[in-house]
Amino acid sequence: MNSTYDPQNIFAKILRQEIPAIKVYEDEQTLAFMDIMPQANGHTLVIPKAEAVTLLDLSAEQAAYTIQIVQKVARAIEIALDAQGIVLMQLSGEAAGQTVPHVHFHLIPSSIHEMRQHAAQAGDPEEIKQTALKIKAALERV
Amino acid sequence: MNSTYDPQNIFAKILRQEIPAIKVYEDEQTLAFMDIMPQANGHTLVIPKAEAVTLLDLSAEQAAYTIQIVQKVARAIEIALDAQGIVLMQLSGEAAGQTVPHVHFHLIPSSIHEMRQHAAQAGDPEEIKQTALKIKAALERV
Repeated sequence: MNSTYDPQNIFAKILRQEIPAIKVYEDEQTLAFMDIMPQANGHTLVIPKAEAVTLLDLSAEQAAYTIQIVQKVARAIEIALDAQGIVLMQLSGEAAGQTVPHVHFHLIPSSIHEMRQHAAQAGDPEEIKQTALKIKAALERV
Repeated sequence: MNSTYDPQNIFAKILRQEIPAIKVYEDEQTLAFMDIMPQANGHTLVIPKAEAVTLLDLSAEQAAYTIQIVQKVARAIEIALDAQGIVLMQLSGEAAGQTVPHVHFHLIPSSIHEMRQHAAQAGDPEEIKQTALKIKAALERV
């Protein structure tokens, strides 16, 4: 599996603030922001800031820290959207369907059987922004 | 999301060795074994031994430790099966499609677009056993 990091990938640009993102959480090691091609309302991405292509490229410490933020954001999504189920998905490698070569964890409040196709269709920006506000507010409570 | 643990779920029975599983890795805190309804050849499950229904019910420490074992098993799958891509999937809540109410991480060496449906069809036990042997052997090297 390719692990050569391309610093021009779009998440690297988001991390460098060269392009915008609808952020819900940020700390020194991680960033969470809305997927602009949501597979369901509330589809959020959690990424470590470390330059890593796949889950396999993260150090144990980076993986350990990131999953804790994934949990935190998942709890906020549950509260914010009254989510009854959340799909966590992480695609390692283009062959798995990974589209951006910076490791990212998808949190999708949906059923695996009902969510829309991966990276297929842009969502409504206004709806995404409103959902992000709810998740941000819920993050204050988790 | 329901977080009441049912000690009669099948993974609890596997952990108590009341029913068999094709195991590839075990330590004090985690167990990895083959999914008997593989969505692709090599479909492996990693579970913490802690009694937790979903990702949201794990302590931060349990989540942190488990994701490190997920990484380890993923690296072994990559080596054992020359996997070019691996889907990590974790379903929290029946509404997400979770079928066994003990938190589990799926590792599926496949494309998200090509893997078979979740929990739909039993695999060939002999093929699964052979694959498990390859993953176990690779685990010695990661």
